[in-house]
Amino acid sequence: MTSQKITEQIFKKQSFLCIGLDVDMAKIPSHLLQEEDPIFAFNKAIIDATHDLCVAYKPNTAFYEAHGVTGWMALEKTIAYLNEKYPDHFTIADAKRGDIGNTSERYAKAFFDTLGFDSVTIAPYMGADSVEPFLTFDGKYAILLALTSNQGAVDFQTKTDDSEALFLKVIRTSKLWQNSHRLMYVVGATKTEQLGQIRRELPDSFLLVPGVGAQGGSLEAVCREAMTPNVGLLVNSSRGILYASDRADFAESARHQAQLIQDQMSQFLQGISD
Amino acid sequence: MTSQKITEQIFKKQSFLCIGLDVDMAKIPSHLLQEEDPIFAFNKAIIDATHDLCVAYKPNTAFYEAHGVTGWMALEKTIAYLNEKYPDHFTIADAKRGDIGNTSERYAKAFFDTLGFDSVTIAPYMGADSVEPFLTFDGKYAILLALTSNQGAVDFQTKTDDSEALFLKVIRTSKLWQNSHRLMYVVGATKTEQLGQIRRELPDSFLLVPGVGAQGGSLEAVCREAMTPNVGLLVNSSRGILYASDRADFAESARHQAQLIQDQMSQFLQGISD
Repeated sequence: MTSQKITEQIFKKQSFLCIGLDVDMAKIPSHLLQEEDPIFAFNKAIIDATHDLCVAYKPNTAFYEAHGVTGWMALEKTIAYLNEKYPDHFTIADAKRGDIGNTSERYAKAFFDTLGFDSVTIAPYMGADSVEPFLTFDGKYAILLALTSNQGAVDFQTKTDDSEALFLKVIRTSKLWQNSHRLMYVVGATKTEQLGQIRRELPDSFLLVPGVGAQGGSLEAVCREAMTPNVGLLVNSSRGILYASDRADFAESARHQAQLIQDQMSQFLQGISD
Repeated sequence: MTSQKITEQIFKKQSFLCIGLDVDMAKIPSHLLQEEDPIFAFNKAIIDATHDLCVAYKPNTAFYEAHGVTGWMALEKTIAYLNEKYPDHFTIADAKRGDIGNTSERYAKAFFDTLGFDSVTIAPYMGADSVEPFLTFDGKYAILLALTSNQGAVDFQTKTDDSEALFLKVIRTSKLWQNSHRLMYVVGATKTEQLGQIRRELPDSFLLVPGVGAQGGSLEAVCREAMTPNVGLLVNSSRGILYASDRADFAESARHQAQLIQDQMSQFLQGISD
């Protein structure tokens, strides 16, 4: 997958929606619990019902690992299903990995080769040699945490006594890394104040933006501050779509929620294609 | 497991060695590749040959995830074997996780409940709400990355324009988090210069110290700078022990290497029990 192809898909579908597949067994419709693999059954139904309204899917590994081997099998089935049936979708393993060089190589192998994701999210704390092994794969992306959407983001990312906040240091330093054209960045939708600044630092990079919806971020503000002529945005929604209903109509309800977001996105895209 | 119990085991065994179970299929003896589960077969042999010389085992999840479901099954078997046969050993999932609150809760469930580890390593980038969910489990520990042993540590952890380096900010801030008595810290053995300073900040915490051996850190310097009356150190070795031989005698060779380290450790422990 190339970023050009993501942009093409965005214009074609009039959507830059990424759906987060964070499957919570306590929230999925109870009739699915009878299935052999409830997590995969849920994902398959959600994907089939929403694929034409979004350009990316993002399973968060925590929700799979919580179930051990069973969960990891559901993750494998989910990505295999996406790659087989919907190969035009950009896939993101939201795994927030990162380790010393020889170990990050294993994680890159795990997510790019073994599972077959297009990208994986990475925590930057350990620096260059913990990220660069993810950047050696042609057509694959590492999505670096820059400024996250959660409350704890202020503990280290923004809190600083000097002139340069950590998230800016991370962005500026990462641009110097080998194959940095294969980097994208996580920037929370709740951080409107810094979104414009980040876009000026990264005029050509895709930003993965969580935090619209349940966490309180505004789609309008995200587009105003950070949309580029190539769009450059993947805006994620998880809970608001997945758990729109916990009854037999859950997939239709998820589609309805995704449709509402896609309608809005279509209007914001109008602004740049005019 | 409590930290008091770890200290007791250290004095009993005269060792504060942690063995990193980072299984590389290209380096294990070729005869093991015939086994149904070569990774578990290798781990079991290493554990059985070294258990009396170390107090902790630390599988790094990357080496398991690289093999997908098969690898995750080997990880489950390894921790189950440790918990059943060697319940006095402290177990560390070297996973470097961390995410928004509701997601970190899932990781905590994965490693503490589903797998049954005593502890898990955590990346601090996302702040308080990404770490605190790991601190709510009685008898379990979160081991926070403070100052890592790799080259990239200088990119963000130490490089700073003001007076307080990020690793110190992480340490000082984390002490204020809820249940911070359940925190331990990763500090690379290669960072001798800062080890003493870190110990003064954390007089009572256990430090997990990688980087002795292959990465060039000195056990003597680590003990001089950071050993406390309760020891407070778990020094990790992985490659130097695991791959001492790639022939039929691999487990004996691993034991021999572990023995050499334990002999040294015993001498440094003498210094504090005198």
